[in-house]
Order: sequence, then C-alpha cells, then structure tokens
Amino acid sequence: MDKKVVGLLGGGQLGRMFVEAANRLNIQVNILDAAKSPAKQISSHEGHFEGSFKDPEAIEKLSKTCDVVTVEIEHVDTQILEKISSRVAVEPSWKTIRMIQDKYAQKEHLQEYNVATAQSIPLAGATNEDLQKVGEQIGFPFMLKSRTEAYDGRGNFPVKSSTDFDAALKALGSRPLYAEKWANFKAELAVMVVKTKDGVLAYPTVETIHEDSICKLVYAPARNVSKKVLEQAQELAKKAVACFWGKGVFGVEMFLLDDDSLLINEIAPRPHNSGHYTIEACPVSQYDAHLRSILDIPIQQHELRIREPSIMLNILGASTPDSAVQIAERSIAAGVGASIHLYGKGDARPGRKMGHMTLTAPSMREAEKAMQPLLDITDEIRGKKSAPASASSAASGAGQAQNAMVGVIMGSFSDMPVLQAGIAILKKLNIPFETHITSAHRTPDWMGEYVHGAMPRGIQVIIAAAGGAAHLPGMAASHTAIPVIGVPVKPTIGDGTDSVLSILNMPRGVPVATVGTNNSTNAALLAARIIGLKEASIQKALVEYADNSTAEVMERERAMNEQGWDAVYEQWHGAKK
Amino acid sequence: MDKKVVGLLGGGQLGRMFVEAANRLNIQVNILDAAKSPAKQISSHEGHFEGSFKDPEAIEKLSKTCDVVTVEIEHVDTQILEKISSRVAVEPSWKTIRMIQDKYAQKEHLQEYNVATAQSIPLAGATNEDLQKVGEQIGFPFMLKSRTEAYDGRGNFPVKSSTDFDAALKALGSRPLYAEKWANFKAELAVMVVKTKDGVLAYPTVETIHEDSICKLVYAPARNVSKKVLEQAQELAKKAVACFWGKGVFGVEMFLLDDDSLLINEIAPRPHNSGHYTIEACPVSQYDAHLRSILDIPIQQHELRIREPSIMLNILGASTPDSAVQIAERSIAAGVGASIHLYGKGDARPGRKMGHMTLTAPSMREAEKAMQPLLDITDEIRGKKSAPASASSAASGAGQAQNAMVGVIMGSFSDMPVLQAGIAILKKLNIPFETHITSAHRTPDWMGEYVHGAMPRGIQVIIAAAGGAAHLPGMAASHTAIPVIGVPVKPTIGDGTDSVLSILNMPRGVPVATVGTNNSTNAALLAARIIGLKEASIQKALVEYADNSTAEVMERERAMNEQGWDAVYEQWHGAKK
Repeated sequence: MDKKVVGLLGGGQLGRMFVEAANRLNIQVNILDAAKSPAKQISSHEGHFEGSFKDPEAIEKLSKTCDVVTVEIEHVDTQILEKISSRVAVEPSWKTIRMIQDKYAQKEHLQEYNVATAQSIPLAGATNEDLQKVGEQIGFPFMLKSRTEAYDGRGNFPVKSSTDFDAALKALGSRPLYAEKWANFKAELAVMVVKTKDGVLAYPTVETIHEDSICKLVYAPARNVSKKVLEQAQELAKKAVACFWGKGVFGVEMFLLDDDSLLINEIAPRPHNSGHYTIEACPVSQYDAHLRSILDIPIQQHELRIREPSIMLNILGASTPDSAVQIAERSIAAGVGASIHLYGKGDARPGRKMGHMTLTAPSMREAEKAMQPLLDITDEIRGKKSAPASASSAASGAGQAQNAMVGVIMGSFSDMPVLQAGIAILKKLNIPFETHITSAHRTPDWMGEYVHGAMPRGIQVIIAAAGGAAHLPGMAASHTAIPVIGVPVKPTIGDGTDSVLSILNMPRGVPVATVGTNNSTNAALLAARIIGLKEASIQKALVEYADNSTAEVMERERAMNEQGWDAVYEQWHGAKK
Repeated sequence: MDKKVVGLLGGGQLGRMFVEAANRLNIQVNILDAAKSPAKQISSHEGHFEGSFKDPEAIEKLSKTCDVVTVEIEHVDTQILEKISSRVAVEPSWKTIRMIQDKYAQKEHLQEYNVATAQSIPLAGATNEDLQKVGEQIGFPFMLKSRTEAYDGRGNFPVKSSTDFDAALKALGSRPLYAEKWANFKAELAVMVVKTKDGVLAYPTVETIHEDSICKLVYAPARNVSKKVLEQAQELAKKAVACFWGKGVFGVEMFLLDDDSLLINEIAPRPHNSGHYTIEACPVSQYDAHLRSILDIPIQQHELRIREPSIMLNILGASTPDSAVQIAERSIAAGVGASIHLYGKGDARPGRKMGHMTLTAPSMREAEKAMQPLLDITDEIRGKKSAPASASSAASGAGQAQNAMVGVIMGSFSDMPVLQAGIAILKKLNIPFETHITSAHRTPDWMGEYVHGAMPRGIQVIIAAAGGAAHLPGMAASHTAIPVIGVPVKPTIGDGTDSVLSILNMPRGVPVATVGTNNSTNAALLAARIIGLKEASIQKALVEYADNSTAEVMERERAMNEQGWDAVYEQWHGAKK
C-alpha cells in the first residue's frame, strides 16, 4: 500500500484534501500544478512536477513516476490520458472523463442507460431561430448550457422567453451549446458514489443549497425528505455512476421534483464540494474513498455512514483579500464546534472558494441552530441577505412535519379532542410530529402500511389513541419495532375500562406503553422522555418542564403559608368557576 | 490568525498531527528536527530548521522566526527556553516543562496544591539501604522511578521486596531516583486538559489499557465507570493542570482505585497518546486545541464533546520492517470503518509507535465489537496473546452491569418472580441492566436517591414493578426525565386492578409507560424498543424477535393445515400437561 505512488493532475483544494488522506496512509502523491499550489503545501517530497495540469508533455512525464494517475477536476486533456493509459492506470477512465466533459454527451449516455435526467437536445447552431426551435420542442423556460468547461453556474443561461435570446447568445454563443428542459425542482440533492473494482457504493443523500449558482450549504442527510426518497436518490446515483468506466468517487447532483421523482442534474468524476462533509461526519471520507478505490484498497458500504447529522458551509471570498480568514476567525469565535478548512489559496476574491466549515450535532435541528451564527457571519462579511439555516417551518405544509419524529395516530377523528393536549406539549417542546387517522377496524391495510413505513421514514415513537375495543395501539405495535404509546380514550358509554384493558393487556411479545385514560399529556411527555435520550436539548426541556411544575406547586404552598388556606381556597375556587 | 508562525521543537508523530491541524488553518509551523521527519513530510515551506530539537543554538535560531515556540515532547533544554522566553512566547511555560521533566518535582508540586497523587519520596542515594528505608516508610511493593527522561514505562522498576533491590539498582541506579507508594488501581483513566489564557477546559475521561508499559488501547469515554467518577476525573485533571504555567493541552494520567478514588499518575505538557481519539471523535481535536490555546484562538468546553463512543488502538511495530503497514492494510480490509494514521516513520521496530487507528460507533458495545478484529490482527502480527476488546463481563460483579442501560427496580424482592421473564429478555438481547430493591414506602429516600442518580450514571430506561397500592413506578417517574415503565404485579388479594390503576392513572405531567399485569416480558421488550432507537444492533435483534414469533405461529398454522386441528391439539395439550 505505502509503496504505491499516485499521480495527481491539479493541486487545488480538492487535491489538497486528497493529499491529506494520502498522507495518513503514507502514500506518495506526485502533483502536477504550479509551485506552492494548495495541495503541494502539505506534501514535501521530490516527486512533484511544476506546470499546468493541462500540459500534455508534463502529464506524460508525471505518468512515468506513478502507478495510477487521477484528476482533481475533469477539465483535462483526455487525448494524453488515453495515450498514457496503455502504460499506467488512469482512474477514472479517460473515457469517463471525456464523456463527462461534454455535458450533452453525458446526458445522452445516461439516457441510453435509462437513467432519469432532464430532456436535453443539442443545438444545430447559435442563432435566434435555433433557440426558437428548442423552445417549441421542450417549452419555455429552458436552460441553455455550454457543453464544456461549465461549473459553478458558469456556462448556464436560463431562457424564459424569446426576449432572452440575444442575451443568452451573447453570453454563451461562442461555445458548443445544448438545451435542457426546465426542471421545477423543490430541492437539490446529491450523493457521493464510490466506484471500486467490485461495484458501486453510496454515501448518504445530502441536500445542497446554491447561491448565485455556487454551492453554499450542504445538509447531510437531506432534510424534510422521506427515507424512501433518500434511498431512491442513492439508487439513482449508483445506477448513473455504474454506467461509466473506471474507479474513483463521483459526485452526483440531482433535482427532486414536486412529485418526489428524481432527475440527474450532473455528475462529477471526482471528489466534490457536496462531499466535503464526509471528512468529519463519516468513518471514511470521500477523499479516503477515492484513494482506496483507485488503489484497490478495500472499502465497505457501512464505512460510508454518517456519525451525526452535519452541515457544510462554504467559505467564499468577499471583496477584501482577508475576507475568508475573517469568516474563519469569527466562526471559530462563535464557539459552535465547526471544523474549519482553509485551502491555502492566499488572497480572497469575490465568490472564490477559499475554504469550508463542517459541523455535526446529535440532531439536524441542533446542527441548524449551531450553524445559524456561522451563516450570519458569512452573509454579513459577504454582503448577502441573511438566510435561516433551518428550513423546517417552510417545508411542513398542512401541519405535517416531513421530518416528523412522532407519529400521532387515531382510530377516528373524534379522538382528536383528547389528543389536543398532547399535541400542544409536542409543539411546546419543539418535537416535529405528524397526525394520521388509521383505524384498525375500518382501514386495517392503511393502518398496517402507515405503521410499517414509520420506522424507515425516521419516526421514533408512535402515539396511538383509541377507545372502546381499542385495538389501534396494539395493532400498531405489532407492525413495528419502535415504541408505541397507547392513549385509552373514554367512550361515550361506560367508564373506559374497556379502552384501558384492550390497550394494556397485550400478549407477551408485543408491548404497548399505556398511559391513563384521556391522558395524551403524559403520552406526549413519555414520547419526549424517549426522544430526549437521543436529543439532549429535549431532555433539557423536560427537566425544565418538571422544574416549572415543582415551582408552581411550591408557589401555592408558599401562598397557603402566607395567606392562610381559606384565602387561597377562595382564589382557587374563583378561578375554577 | 494565518499570519502567525509557530515554532515547534520536534517533528515526530505528535508534531505531525499538530501540523495537520495547523495546515487546515493555514498557520505556518517552523519545525526543528531532522530532515524528512514525520511532521516535515506534510509541511512544505522554507521556514523549517534541520537539526536536533535539543540543540540550544538551533532553538535560538528557530525562535527568531516565529511568534510562539511550543514543544512536541517535554524532554527539551529548558535553559534555552527560559532564555528565549524574554523575546518570544514559549507555551507551555519553560517553568512548567522544567517541573514536569522531573517527575518527583512534579508530584511535590501537585501535593503542594492539594492535588491527589501517589505518595512520593526522594532517594538520598542509590544503595540497598536507601531502598530498605523507603520500603519501611511506604511499604512493599513500591515503584522505583527515574526522576527524568522516563516515558512508555522506561525508567520504572517495581520493587516487591528486598530481593529486588539489586536488579532495581542495576536497571536504574545511575539515574536520579524517587519512590512511589504502590497504587492498587482497578483502571487507568486519562483526561486531556486545555489550558487557555482564560482557564482550563477538559475533554471527556477516557480509559487507557497498557501492555508492556506502553499505551495500547484508549476507550473514550471510559467503560464501566459511573458518570460521577468520569466527572471527578475531569475535575481532578483540571485542578492539576491549573497549577502549572502557560497555555496548551496537557495529558493527565490517573489511577482509579478500588474505592473509586482517583490519584494523578503523571502529566504530559503536550498532546498525548490518550488524546489521539479526539481527531475523529470530537469537533475540536487535541491538536486543534493546542494550536488554538497557544495562539489565543477561542475554544469552548462543549467543542470538546464526543460525537460517538470511540476506541483508539496503537499500531506498534513488530519484528518485520513492514509490520505496521501490514497491520494497517489488514485492518482496512476488515472493513469496520477505522480511521488509520500512519506516521511516516519508515521501517517498524518492535514496540515503536508507527501509527494508530480510531473507530467510533453509536455505542461502546458496537465499537468494541468492531474493534475486535483489529485487535486480533495487531496481536497476531505482533505475536501477542489475543485479548478481548470488551471488558464488560469482567467488570459486572455480582450480576450488576456497571455500564447498565436499564435499571430494574422493585418495591419488594417478592416481585422478583414476576420480573424474571423480563430479565431473561434483557439478557437475550444483550442489554446491560442492574436490579435494585427501592421501596417507595419503606425506603423512600433510597428510592429517590437511586432514581435521581440513574440518568447521570447512564441508565436509559427504568423498569419498575409494584403491586397493590403500587406507587413505585409513578414515584420513580417523578424523580427523573428518562422513561419509566411500570409493571403492575398481581397482589395475593384481589385481581390486580389496584396495581394497574395506581400505576396507570398518573397525574398529567408525570408519565409512566404501563404494561399488562405481571407482563415483565413486554416491559423488557418496550425498553428494548426505546434503546433500539439509539442502538441499531438492538433494533435489529427486535425485528428478528418479531420475525421468530411470526414464524412460530405460522409453523403451527402450517401444522394444523397438514395434520388437522385435532392432531395438533393433542400435541399441544400434551405439551401443556
């Protein structure tokens, strides 16, 4: 392992973080790039080459010193890569890099392999008539894109109507072009895929937030997206990468449409901005994974798991040369435990990627809260309008939190008055929940389907209310391995013993946590105690809740001592009326 | 921040990992050590110095190029540090390094500040008579120690009786000596402390396992130790470090004695082997923390938290030059997600620290399980007897797991027959638990004390059984914020409605998860469902449990179809008898 030498075309930040991973395994990386480039700063040996990573002659020289050649970025000369590949391994394959360089060819290739991607059509020429034809074919608006050398939004032009033609052609007319059908997406997702000699593995699905077409934030895992969609995104990304050649990591960017379907946006055949979070959040980072895959060092799917939810924020340059360092210094001072990466690029320029920071927390909500001051600092220094790190309120349409932790279910809507008090507690403690009617008797299939899907979607606890022959809590418990709390609802006939006993006396093997009749307050507090074991902030809120209860009672005790029991009784009795 | 330059005496592995942290903040570190030393390999600039880090002249030269001088290891010339300190910051202070260099002076200093440490006495001379006097004063066995240049067990000699005198003096007689009272410790703990300009902060308390007097394994946090002891260890470590001068991180090694009291063993004024785990496990690593503290970059206590329980295993050289790389390669191939650090030291020698690996997992039990193959690999390559990564069985004396996750409590031992079935489930699912008699009526204070202390000690769920006027579950719930499961026990008189209702009908605000009468099985399964939310392995076991129940029932259904109901009835009836 430590006898292998890797040749790297490009020594920017991606190369630097790759070298960091290689350093830890004592694997030598010979870098072709300018002297003192970011990657070279952290690698001291005699094997580097000075020059442009696009220079065929230099690439040829480099290739003679190493066992495998890889690229930091896909904008390289694939002719020379094809040539040297007869003598040295090139990973990923020059064929992959060549095809991905041409975004239209990339899309065509994916469509050949039945990988969902936006409809794309090549432009015959660069005239208003050509654009008009495109608009008639795929509709307005559409996205006009340069086939090559496009990244961070450069090379894209949204064409809303024919009035945009002149501006679009002025911006991009000199380049080879294609057009993409407009994708009305509700979120942008991304998955890092690892292609090894044995197959493809995927990191978790993340959510990317762009600003001015540059990646700004990455949330890992993606928020407000069901487990099912997270998994579908991983599968789509794996399917997409599997139809390319060679080994290495690939960044796959996707659109999530309103109907929860997914389209590939584009693929990068290398470590990617959307995968920086893996350095802190995962046992094996995207850079470790790239190194391992191109050198045939083993790697396993479960080594790509997330330790804790995490958020990555890019440090982009602002108007002053020291703006990136300012962002870093003030972010450290915020004291929220962000890991700072500065790339050694010297002076900042507006929009230049100067570094990034990642923070992880026991829950995404805590990560969002911790990220807020860092976002405020960067927005302030970069002169941007301040944005919220949290998107939960915007996404929880119609009262259903898409990132719900508690599922509140009832056999009939008539149980809702009983559940109100519990729901108020969940809201007060800021625990995201969803409410559903899932009758064990009248909708047995839907009930089973809902409960069965709850755990995979991230639901932690189910609160089930039912009265009479109250089967819902027990039936729910039999469809899942997460805790189910049963709330007996007092029926109109009888004292509710029927409700209690049909929830309480479950057979051995299928437990239901039963609370008192109509006592949804305690059901919610019990759910909070359970979730509080994982989320420190909720446990803390519970302790405060108990302290407040104690204080309330002690206040009345104090009043009774000071004013006498009869005076307090009169106040109390008056308030009751 | 990025304009500051740090001068570093020593470029070994500790220096290398420090430089890794500095690289990420673009802070230049000028290293004084041999060419191509581990730290220099990952730092390419013109500011390094070649030579011994003990060379006063070279130190003086280095000091003129930087804003602060720090040390990789304390075995340096403090005369020259004292001299340069008039011109450049030296962190930690030369006074601290000088005092810590002399282990006896270190102990004396700690005792002056009332910091608990083993009784230590200086030796007047190095004769059998001197040793005899020591033995009479502090008893046999005692530890004979070199006052200086002692690390990794070198410089220590255990003296069991007068028959050891000759060997002890032969080994150490030429060095300045002192003797330490023998500490009968049950565990070795360590805490990394960060001394900033504003005060002291502490990382979590870890457990260190030594082999041949060299640190082999670090468990973070320490296992089988109560939260109270973990916190006491942090407090003691902070108190110890607070009485030294200057800034930086300090490694504090401690003995945990049989009575749970703590003694300082020794202090290292620098990053330490017992803190390597912080690179992966904590938002801010010990190297980040050292850099920040010596440069007055802010740092907060909560940035030193552990993301997940973690275990560090040193990669020590064996007999062949490639043994460390072999350990690394095979450990990667084991596919358990360990982060490997190789130090770039070239050929391995037996016992030489060549690298380390850290893995983290959602629980310590999962980390232990994942670590086992790596431990087996290193033990095999190093020719050591294979050791278990898990110590839980050895430590759970008298049936009480010290790392218990479930507290099983009962109002009276007569409830034990009812609890048996539940305890069997906990055992089967491998959930550590403890059992206690805590009567709400006969031992109200002890009950309150036990339940109040459960959460801080790491208990996740309480199962409380009681019958009749069954107050225990509800009283327990009122003393804690963790979930309490109540098991109504059927009393000798009546049908048990009294037990059910006194557990179930708690006032709003204090929830108890009630299960059916005598149904401790479901109480244990409910506890498992709750813990399963955090521990994937337990959730998986629960799913298997449910699948087995389904299979059992379906087997009988199949039998009834094939053999007829009457034949199956006879078998069943026969088995019942």
